[in-house]
Amino acid sequence: MEPGRGNRDARPAVTPVAAVLPAGGSGERLGGATPKQFCALQGRPLVSYTVRAMERINWISDIIVVVSPENIETMKSIIEKYGHKRVMVVKGGITRHRSIFNGLKVFAENEFSNRLLQKPEVVIIHDAVRPFVEEDILSKVVMAAKEHGAAGAIRPLVSTVIASAADGCLDHSLERARYRASEMPQAFLFDIIYEAYQQCTDYDLDYGTECLHLALKYCKTNAKLVEGTADLWKVTYKRDLYAAESIIKDNLSQQVCVITNVKEAVAQVGFLLHESLESQIKVEALSLSKNDSHLQNVFSGQCYNFVCVNDKKYAIQETQQLVDMLEKSNIPLLYPVVLISVHLDISENTSFGIGMEELARIKKFAKEVKKKNILVYGLLIQYKDHLLLQETVNSAAALIMAFIKDRNPELIGQLLVA
Amino acid sequence: MEPGRGNRDARPAVTPVAAVLPAGGSGERLGGATPKQFCALQGRPLVSYTVRAMERINWISDIIVVVSPENIETMKSIIEKYGHKRVMVVKGGITRHRSIFNGLKVFAENEFSNRLLQKPEVVIIHDAVRPFVEEDILSKVVMAAKEHGAAGAIRPLVSTVIASAADGCLDHSLERARYRASEMPQAFLFDIIYEAYQQCTDYDLDYGTECLHLALKYCKTNAKLVEGTADLWKVTYKRDLYAAESIIKDNLSQQVCVITNVKEAVAQVGFLLHESLESQIKVEALSLSKNDSHLQNVFSGQCYNFVCVNDKKYAIQETQQLVDMLEKSNIPLLYPVVLISVHLDISENTSFGIGMEELARIKKFAKEVKKKNILVYGLLIQYKDHLLLQETVNSAAALIMAFIKDRNPELIGQLLVA
Repeated sequence: MEPGRGNRDARPAVTPVAAVLPAGGSGERLGGATPKQFCALQGRPLVSYTVRAMERINWISDIIVVVSPENIETMKSIIEKYGHKRVMVVKGGITRHRSIFNGLKVFAENEFSNRLLQKPEVVIIHDAVRPFVEEDILSKVVMAAKEHGAAGAIRPLVSTVIASAADGCLDHSLERARYRASEMPQAFLFDIIYEAYQQCTDYDLDYGTECLHLALKYCKTNAKLVEGTADLWKVTYKRDLYAAESIIKDNLSQQVCVITNVKEAVAQVGFLLHESLESQIKVEALSLSKNDSHLQNVFSGQCYNFVCVNDKKYAIQETQQLVDMLEKSNIPLLYPVVLISVHLDISENTSFGIGMEELARIKKFAKEVKKKNILVYGLLIQYKDHLLLQETVNSAAALIMAFIKDRNPELIGQLLVA
Repeated sequence: MEPGRGNRDARPAVTPVAAVLPAGGSGERLGGATPKQFCALQGRPLVSYTVRAMERINWISDIIVVVSPENIETMKSIIEKYGHKRVMVVKGGITRHRSIFNGLKVFAENEFSNRLLQKPEVVIIHDAVRPFVEEDILSKVVMAAKEHGAAGAIRPLVSTVIASAADGCLDHSLERARYRASEMPQAFLFDIIYEAYQQCTDYDLDYGTECLHLALKYCKTNAKLVEGTADLWKVTYKRDLYAAESIIKDNLSQQVCVITNVKEAVAQVGFLLHESLESQIKVEALSLSKNDSHLQNVFSGQCYNFVCVNDKKYAIQETQQLVDMLEKSNIPLLYPVVLISVHLDISENTSFGIGMEELARIKKFAKEVKKKNILVYGLLIQYKDHLLLQETVNSAAALIMAFIKDRNPELIGQLLVA
């Protein structure tokens, strides 16, 4: 996953590397109308996450996404909308192997694209529905492929594998320790896998699914097997979409930036809030009144959560300022950004009154800003009883964490009370 | 899953059936300190969900949960807390097979329990970390076991299975269509599986994991394989806990009960709200002022979401009445119940004022009620501009759905505005 992770300089030498992502599946096992690679997670299609996982690795020169003919325009609009670079969309065949073969042809045959791409030395093949692939495993399979001609990620089996007899009864079970699940990514010397596909029988093209098998069968290349991590799993069922969504939310909830203005009372609450949050999340603190370079650093550090503490009850202007900066930064392009506007009430009054029109204005503002993929929530902290301040701040921190973890688009524009 | 599903009369004849649930795993693959069977989902340990899935089936006479020695007290307190019946806790061995064997001995050897249970004709073996098992598949494996001596649920393989050579390279890959993943539940004639365990070598007891294999090897019984559904999967990794939590929330979000009092303005909003909700969820409507029998029906129908519409702004008393009824009903014992108190503001005033003390009282009330596993949220609907009423009601319905789907314990006692 992207936010705040990954060493981007672990380049496997200077080998030209490309990637082919088969994304032609129909998603039957998911049980929905939308093929799983196009299902939205935090508003963005799954395939875009996988493309991004490849794109951010600068030693991968070209990324070929192979989709079924009816989804070509959808895929192109995804690439445009999310600003993906170095990506080409290619028309798939009627089976997985035929689709991958089409993807490879882009580097070897003119007819499959209006421009022939530079043939890579190594090609990565990776499923579009495995969005959490890390640079480390990609680098490992590429290096192993350079040495062995082919390589693939494997995982221990979760269930025992059995063979059934013709009568639907158990024939035998396999000794679990001797076998592995073959996962993705896989990598190949381009010439080997391309040769394998050229030699491949129609039967294999139609009924096979395993690229490592083709390299072995047609090119006598025994792929090197590389132990992968648990996050390589393939989004297959509806529960996998649930899991992926939760993992993405989890990754987005690692860091928060707390912005306070300079007034003293505010500064104290800001300090206590910082302390209370720090026990749950990494906190970056800064002041909007300073120059913006610090904020720019936070932006480039890919922080997706902002807390703005101020002493005006409904400081839409200040929030607007941050919204403008976020919009320019491009951060909300890939993930929804959470912006919590904390209003500090320092009046002695035991009751506070909010006009419905005021509330309606905040909601309208939040609705507008949501179009930019920024989720604005309001939070009121009463700074009255000094003795209760710590408790109130802790309650505020808990609400802030709830906003950040849930990223619930329905609750935007609401004003909660700590 | 429980809420609103399952035909409980599909009893496989009058065969005495018992179940053994191995729950001794250490949860290494999960990467947490708590073994996964004890991880909390919506506040309740995973193992309790699986026990409940067995317990609600009235033709299963005894449920044996086998846990490692250090977790016996934990398990006993779970059974007490959630009121599980027909369950006995048994001390596990150092491996899975030894634990299952211990579980079976309860029916055959006096030393493993202070009371010898009646020996079942068929015994179900099911993992404690597969909480979503349905009666249908349990019934199928039991009937197949009666006929064939052994039976087990299977699923198609998600990944290709490969064998590696000694050098860490691919030896061969298995033809996916010929193999299946062996899942749970499995069922056996008691005498067969018990005989298999008695004959079993120490090597098999220590390194094996597959019960079907033992029945084949030691009793020449070829188990009948029964196609299972996708929800039989085993909670193995952290992502599986995320998925399980989402599935539970999903199952709890199928039905809402809307309670309105009789005043006219309220009744109209109640009607519109009903309509708006109905497009998203099954709605049961009733009035508290009628006699309680209807409400009792809703309770016994296992509804876990309640919306209370009234024209008093902070009708804690009315909410309290429902809380009392819910508490008596036992519904909040297994799942958190969502109770949304909708306040209808019919004043002409453009501003509303809420005393902080008022809000604090609502929050305090919600905090108290949360101890009973009831999550109370407040929602304000302004009934002023007749033209905007539909829009306001739609917005209210969206907030209600958000409360129901999220079941967020941090947001209790807050007052949102539609």
